[in-house]
Amino acid sequence: MAPRPIITLTTDFGEGSRYVGAMKGVLLAINPEANVVDISHSVPHQDVLQGALTLLEATCYFPPGTLHVAVIDPGVGTSRRILYAEIDGQRYVCPDNGLLTCLAERAKPSTMRSVENTGLWLDGVSHTFHGRDIMAPVAARLSLGIDPTDVGPVIEDYARISLPRAERVAQKIEGEVIEVDAFGNLITNITADMIADVPRDENTHVRCDGHVTLGIFNAYGDQPPMTLIALVGSGGKLELAIVDDSAKIMLGVGVGVPVTVEW
Amino acid sequence: MAPRPIITLTTDFGEGSRYVGAMKGVLLAINPEANVVDISHSVPHQDVLQGALTLLEATCYFPPGTLHVAVIDPGVGTSRRILYAEIDGQRYVCPDNGLLTCLAERAKPSTMRSVENTGLWLDGVSHTFHGRDIMAPVAARLSLGIDPTDVGPVIEDYARISLPRAERVAQKIEGEVIEVDAFGNLITNITADMIADVPRDENTHVRCDGHVTLGIFNAYGDQPPMTLIALVGSGGKLELAIVDDSAKIMLGVGVGVPVTVEW
Amino acid sequence: MAPRPIITLTTDFGEGSRYVGAMKGVLLAINPEANVVDISHSVPHQDVLQGALTLLEATCYFPPGTLHVAVIDPGVGTSRRILYAEIDGQRYVCPDNGLLTCLAERAKPSTMRSVENTGLWLDGVSHTFHGRDIMAPVAARLSLGIDPTDVGPVIEDYARISLPRAERVAQKIEGEVIEVDAFGNLITNITADMIADVPRDENTHVRCDGHVTLGIFNAYGDQPPMTLIALVGSGGKLELAIVDDSAKIMLGVGVGVPVTVEW
Repeated sequence: MAPRPIITLTTDFGEGSRYVGAMKGVLLAINPEANVVDISHSVPHQDVLQGALTLLEATCYFPPGTLHVAVIDPGVGTSRRILYAEIDGQRYVCPDNGLLTCLAERAKPSTMRSVENTGLWLDGVSHTFHGRDIMAPVAARLSLGIDPTDVGPVIEDYARISLPRAERVAQKIEGEVIEVDAFGNLITNITADMIADVPRDENTHVRCDGHVTLGIFNAYGDQPPMTLIALVGSGGKLELAIVDDSAKIMLGVGVGVPVTVEW
Repeated sequence: MAPRPIITLTTDFGEGSRYVGAMKGVLLAINPEANVVDISHSVPHQDVLQGALTLLEATCYFPPGTLHVAVIDPGVGTSRRILYAEIDGQRYVCPDNGLLTCLAERAKPSTMRSVENTGLWLDGVSHTFHGRDIMAPVAARLSLGIDPTDVGPVIEDYARISLPRAERVAQKIEGEVIEVDAFGNLITNITADMIADVPRDENTHVRCDGHVTLGIFNAYGDQPPMTLIALVGSGGKLELAIVDDSAKIMLGVGVGVPVTVEW
Repeated sequence: MAPRPIITLTTDFGEGSRYVGAMKGVLLAINPEANVVDISHSVPHQDVLQGALTLLEATCYFPPGTLHVAVIDPGVGTSRRILYAEIDGQRYVCPDNGLLTCLAERAKPSTMRSVENTGLWLDGVSHTFHGRDIMAPVAARLSLGIDPTDVGPVIEDYARISLPRAERVAQKIEGEVIEVDAFGNLITNITADMIADVPRDENTHVRCDGHVTLGIFNAYGDQPPMTLIALVGSGGKLELAIVDDSAKIMLGVGVGVPVTVEW
């Protein structure tokens, strides 16, 4: 027997939003065998970059063929398109507003279609909730095995957002904080690759908003509590943490703040 | 093979409450094939009206026969009854405190029973957690196919809460905010039906707490960012929003604040 | 057909953390038939005691054989071990930092192993996220039916945290608040057993931080709104509540504050 098809949800509706409940209902009404899995409903409201990072870091762990519905959709009801995409074995249904930027940079999409076949949508589509009225029913029908060619025409262009880039010049890398997790860890856009040949010892200075920490470590527990520490986090990016506390709160910094590595 | 029976949970326990975990355990211990789906655990504590609105807006999307367990239960352990109801094809288990008011107003309940058969409950029922000790086991056993007549006797009366009503007088409608979503959108009790013949142009004034916006639009994106906009939301009710921001915070208003439409 | 194996998740990652999404992906990639159930992701960051209490109160309701993965793991990446345990019919995978203390006190573990067989882990284990890279894959493989002897060697010793104890002297019990739920109810370490012979009438004084309430009741609704009330909660422990409000906020107290019962 084939395993039940998995459909994940990533939104900015807030945990416990009844909008999420409605989407789950639509998914299960169309495919009662779907395995609906919450990834996150805590993407900051209308923050496409944070949504794109969430998809990048979480969806790759699911089995190939998983359907991921992502609804961070400030343009709902306007002329923005809705996408169906296949990237690196995973399948996505989301607004065409840049949510796939990070994923499409890591692996070229093998399929990109504009969701236009209204026959797959709910009747009486609202202007304000396409997650429920279009994306959920399309994903549910895809999970039932309809051919992706049915959702709408192939497209070549799709929206991308500009991602902040870290730059390396001589013995210095200039990046910035791109994400803050619930522990208050500051995740930067400086990748493990970029610091692969950077010494890990105390001659390497990592600076953020006037604070400095020496060396790059492996684990939070490698330094005493309350210490500012730099390490390569679980997503393969340099991060700054306060051991057993919140770097976000202790340093008072957030997304967009510059981080430099110098050695 | 029949699809797995769906049991949804709506509570005011808070996201991540271990009380929710305990209820899931009870449901799955009795019916390991149940598909337990979270609708919301963020109903404001002991706020029966918000619970009733959540059930109204979310449960109708689920497949017919879905069991919905709702635990907003300030009277737990007192003489208040527990209900089993069938309304518009959906099935509900919840305290008899008005949680079904909105649903029962939209469609007459076809079945309403008092949950009294202690043989279906957990042993050693607590005085403070009937969600775990009574409602979850009864719902799980219903999902296994027991006859609803087994849960307890038919009743005719059940608790209803008074709902704030919008009124239309000549060319003016007076309503109020009845719900605020996580985006800070202010959802009113003025329905799409009530404004079906109201002009959508700028001669229509929508007022809330000293603020006014002209016209009624379709989508948030129909106006520039930071604009106060009125539109018919996804639940078929007039709502006030600040484009790309929070009307709740920007206007400093919440549930109960009057909203008028005049043309 | 056997029911789908249940794997629960309890973490301090925060509701909506993409780290939880990644763990769900790993679980389902290895066992697409797993029924992944959220218990809580709201354990206070790195608070092993609260994690231990969550496991104690929630996991016992699940069907025997359920796998519970708990990741409150401040020592991730250091030499701390990872445990596989069987306690009272339930199965646990978690760091060896005291998370099983409360469970192991209630029922002697029948199996305790150190998770060391790297063949069951993800490739390229990170130093900062063993929940995703070790615990999830091991739990998923256990859910597929591998023999627990494969995860690693039996151990006798395992980490325990010290639990605050209530003490009874003559006609007085001295305990403390050990948990605060989302309603603001103050849950103490004074068990129902300890007060089994204590009179429930108004001659019994329950004190907390200068506040006093008379008598021990059964249900929140046994006293009028805004009253401070003492009762035995759903976990079998004495708790203090403000009827229809938050004792945490009204009394301004939290975990660790002394509570006495005198009669």
